[in-house]
Amino acid sequence: MLQLHPDDVIWRNLRLATLDPSHGTPYGLLENRALIVRGETILAIVPEPDLPADLPRAIDLEGRLVTPGLIDCHTHLVFGGDRAAEWEQRLNGVSYQTISAQGGGINATVSATRDSTADQLEQLAQQRLERLMREGVTTVEIKSGYGLNDEAEEKMLRVAQRLAQTNPVEISPTLLAAHAVPREYRHDPDAYVDHVCQHMLPALWEKRLFEAVDVFCENVGFTLAQSERVFQAAQALGIPIKGHVEQLSNLGGTALVSRYRGLSADHIEYLDDAGVAAMAHSGTVAVLLPGAFYFLQERQRPPVDRLRQQGVPMAVATDYNPGTSPFASLHLAMNMACVQFGLTPEEAWAGVTRHAAKALGRGETHGQLKAGFVADLAVWDARSPVEMVYEPGRNPLYQRVFRGRIQ
Amino acid sequence: MLQLHPDDVIWRNLRLATLDPSHGTPYGLLENRALIVRGETILAIVPEPDLPADLPRAIDLEGRLVTPGLIDCHTHLVFGGDRAAEWEQRLNGVSYQTISAQGGGINATVSATRDSTADQLEQLAQQRLERLMREGVTTVEIKSGYGLNDEAEEKMLRVAQRLAQTNPVEISPTLLAAHAVPREYRHDPDAYVDHVCQHMLPALWEKRLFEAVDVFCENVGFTLAQSERVFQAAQALGIPIKGHVEQLSNLGGTALVSRYRGLSADHIEYLDDAGVAAMAHSGTVAVLLPGAFYFLQERQRPPVDRLRQQGVPMAVATDYNPGTSPFASLHLAMNMACVQFGLTPEEAWAGVTRHAAKALGRGETHGQLKAGFVADLAVWDARSPVEMVYEPGRNPLYQRVFRGRIQ
Ligand SMILES: [Zn+2]
Ligand SMILES: [Zn+2]
Repeated sequence: MLQLHPDDVIWRNLRLATLDPSHGTPYGLLENRALIVRGETILAIVPEPDLPADLPRAIDLEGRLVTPGLIDCHTHLVFGGDRAAEWEQRLNGVSYQTISAQGGGINATVSATRDSTADQLEQLAQQRLERLMREGVTTVEIKSGYGLNDEAEEKMLRVAQRLAQTNPVEISPTLLAAHAVPREYRHDPDAYVDHVCQHMLPALWEKRLFEAVDVFCENVGFTLAQSERVFQAAQALGIPIKGHVEQLSNLGGTALVSRYRGLSADHIEYLDDAGVAAMAHSGTVAVLLPGAFYFLQERQRPPVDRLRQQGVPMAVATDYNPGTSPFASLHLAMNMACVQFGLTPEEAWAGVTRHAAKALGRGETHGQLKAGFVADLAVWDARSPVEMVYEPGRNPLYQRVFRGRIQ
Repeated sequence: MLQLHPDDVIWRNLRLATLDPSHGTPYGLLENRALIVRGETILAIVPEPDLPADLPRAIDLEGRLVTPGLIDCHTHLVFGGDRAAEWEQRLNGVSYQTISAQGGGINATVSATRDSTADQLEQLAQQRLERLMREGVTTVEIKSGYGLNDEAEEKMLRVAQRLAQTNPVEISPTLLAAHAVPREYRHDPDAYVDHVCQHMLPALWEKRLFEAVDVFCENVGFTLAQSERVFQAAQALGIPIKGHVEQLSNLGGTALVSRYRGLSADHIEYLDDAGVAAMAHSGTVAVLLPGAFYFLQERQRPPVDRLRQQGVPMAVATDYNPGTSPFASLHLAMNMACVQFGLTPEEAWAGVTRHAAKALGRGETHGQLKAGFVADLAVWDARSPVEMVYEPGRNPLYQRVFRGRIQ
């Protein structure tokens, strides 16, 4: 029999989409339950009839649907400026070469980020973060990667840290110093990789400003050999790794990430069967980013059937960034994952909860409604979790609960 | 010299995106202007320096961007039920045949609409309408077409009428009785067309419940000959026409609509050069519906280059409906028109203002900021109109003004 403390909070009259697969129901649905929170953690889930009728201090949700708080496990939320004008130029027929010669593309964002103060970056990122939180998001991964030098990368990561301190949300910061080769190293990319491995990575890790290391492994990014050097440096310090891999071509980055037992391989439109097998073997999460696929009007879809067959967990994230995915909506990303990639709505939900948690190394504490897990909840005026996926702009969020507290 | 009345309202310190092409600037931009409203109409646009500094009763917008209120010129906003569960079934591999045999597809919406009271339909449509209004929309077209009998079609149109009476928004109702063949006529579609032409159309027109007549001319809808009979009946009563045409195949519906000098030809993914030429000749507006294109993951794009070359005005609308476009966001539709169809952001804006007005027979009064036009405005915390198109979820709407009144 459950012993309740006076400070325990009881949420009652719930329909729970636990996203816990052990229940064997779609979305891990449990009807007519109560959820007991002790401090910041879920203590227990009990059938409603097991509770006395007149519990003081119980919060009655009147049959509303409760899911885990959503997790956006891949974003570039902190950056200066925007790229709307450049996008407009492209749609008006200005060539990529001309825009690049004008200092456009990722260089424009790097310049704007370097030129912005931490306060300016924070103010912009705050607005973007609020849009995510309004959709029930309680954990957000944020990458560096528009600073590309010691000072500006640290500035970005400190902004991410500050967002975590000032908002009821958990932030998982990632070092993506190997996002692009900065202009000052354009004639010697390997020297930049050396600098990342020997200076930035250990120095910023020493300051505990990030949790994982990411690399953009692509023809327009870093080679497989360069990516591996970064992963080796991370491994030597015991830092988890992840990768932007197989987005525009198949370089074998996913197999590399898997060899280093990476948390996640992200994008993976061009992943082949061997890459899928490597992920299945290493337990690496496939992070699907349908917003970028849409915005770039790509044609090659990630191998969803194969990932499904091989039991590779699939996460879904916004990839929010100014160049290829300017959509701060995880509901829209879920819709796009279903419409474009053929995920089921249940897979899309697992992708922003259970599997997203695993992609951030939080699979045992986040992303499911389960005893012992964090009490991060989203409460919905909805009958089924499919509604938020089918009609992303509707957003029937009733309440967002972070660590047991209503926000 | 302008003579001001005591009741005139002066909006000052504006950046105007007038969408009036006569200014020759992108978006018809005019800097540093004031806009004078008399009653429900724009009286004049004057340079800011021409005004005395201390005007009483002037509203200072502090340099904010003002556009015409947005116009969604193609929606199916009134219907019962939703189709989320059916969509989920499809994504889980249930065949279209099975779903159809279960009474799914458009029949499900027809049943739910027939079974709903006017109040129930109004309540659902009200929520959808509010989502559009929050984005700065001031005029919305609403089609019937889920009733498919005298009583239910009238019920839908009366709900549209009621929405116009209870909201600060203009509604343009369209009779789409020829949306699908109702079950009771499935063995004799021509008899249903007879009924539409001889009874529904004249009876509902007599009651002034709609402004235009629409037909779904498609292999899965009505034939060219059936469509023409509806258009003839409309023409005999002097009612403007429009058509759902060339969405899934090329039947020649657009040429037919053009022959009847239709207001608009909508969808037109499969339109050929002859069809474009016919539209150019008749002045018919091309209404692009990128939400349905996205949701159905179509491959064949509307002939945008050709429409542009031939000077056919292009509108953009949500096509909000439960089966193929469950997105009540005109900003998202603008984004999709650019991303998927290659419209420029300026064309997307013309598509939800000047050209959308023309598609609703309101080209001389709506959709531009211009003396004599209605004072329907959207005020934005944005520098450029591209921002709402590039990042649809951001919605920097500051104020919505309907007929000169701040909402
Ligand atoms: Zn990314
Ligand atoms: Zn339609």
